Amino acid sequence: MTLRRSEVRKAQTRAAEMLAAAGIVLTDEERAGIEVAGFGLGNLEEQGLELITYVNTDRYCAKDLVLFPGQTCPEHLHPDVDGLPGKMETFRCRSGKVFLYVEGEATPHTQANVPAASEPHYTVFHEIVLHPGEQYTIAPGTKHWFQGGPEGAVVSEFSSTSRDELDIFTDPAIVRMPVTIEDE
Amino acid sequence: MTLRRSEVRKAQTRAAEMLAAAGIVLTDEERAGIEVAGFGLGNLEEQGLELITYVNTDRYCAKDLVLFPGQTCPEHLHPDVDGLPGKMETFRCRSGKVFLYVEGEATPHTQANVPAASEPHYTVFHEIVLHPGEQYTIAPGTKHWFQGGPEGAVVSEFSSTSRDELDIFTDPAIVRMPVTIEDE
Repeated sequence: MTLRRSEVRKAQTRAAEMLAAAGIVLTDEERAGIEVAGFGLGNLEEQGLELITYVNTDRYCAKDLVLFPGQTCPEHLHPDVDGLPGKMETFRCRSGKVFLYVEGEATPHTQANVPAASEPHYTVFHEIVLHPGEQYTIAPGTKHWFQGGPEGAVVSEFSSTSRDELDIFTDPAIVRMPVTIEDE
Repeated sequence: MTLRRSEVRKAQTRAAEMLAAAGIVLTDEERAGIEVAGFGLGNLEEQGLELITYVNTDRYCAKDLVLFPGQTCPEHLHPDVDGLPGKMETFRCRSGKVFLYVEGEATPHTQANVPAASEPHYTVFHEIVLHPGEQYTIAPGTKHWFQGGPEGAVVSEFSSTSRDELDIFTDPAIVRMPVTIEDE
């Protein structure tokens, strides 16, 4: 299920407001180009992500990610590419709070709520909670997912080269790069 | 000429205030560890740089740089390392204004003032002015220098791996990694 253009525009506006509130200045062009990822699941508020890519070269990448309150970026990993290690990424929380889950010993009583309809597709539960100014680096090939806290979150992502189209999601229903449907 | 501990502390406090004003949240540990680079020139306000490195792996690096009003980071380049291209870096202005100079056709009537005592060691004058939300990527091996505008600047730097100790400065008097002198 793809997103309609009007949903995308609404999410862009909301993400731009959260970025501005976090003190992050964008150009008009950047604001208009905020990427809204619904992952083909048809429920953006529950499972989705808003992002802006500042630079993505063959050596490094930098983005800002926006999570609405309780919004979840579904579980995935960054595979090896052409025999080289997959994407390594550092998440740095800028505002709000983010619940991050990676492979490792499951944390009892995790703080995030797994999206109900997709429960079987969430399999890693080692919890890291990031507040503003806190950061965590995810090793290549590690399954992970993350969710915005009660007020959402703005998260800077510093990483090696991004090849989002190669990401492997646990949920086979996910389409990372869906096409937006124009409103009638 | 190295900096005294008291000068370093004062510059850290000022840089932390500018970062906070730009909406950038640091941990207490990060604030206490802000790097103050005087380049061994003994006049930090004129030629110097304050920086915080969030992450520096063998694949990518992310920093925030602080320039006080009119403060200049002296001309340098990032050389090839072990046959691989030198550091590539993207500067993104967060607050204030930064005057950046790279190799290429000299801009007439540049806006920055070359530090008087070091004039012979500034040789590239192709000007890029960055306001908040604007960015520029410096190719490996390109000579460059930059100066904070009248209100200084906070600049995010996204890059390949940083090896600051290998930077080549045009001014042979520069010491990139000087030792701080404790106050008496």
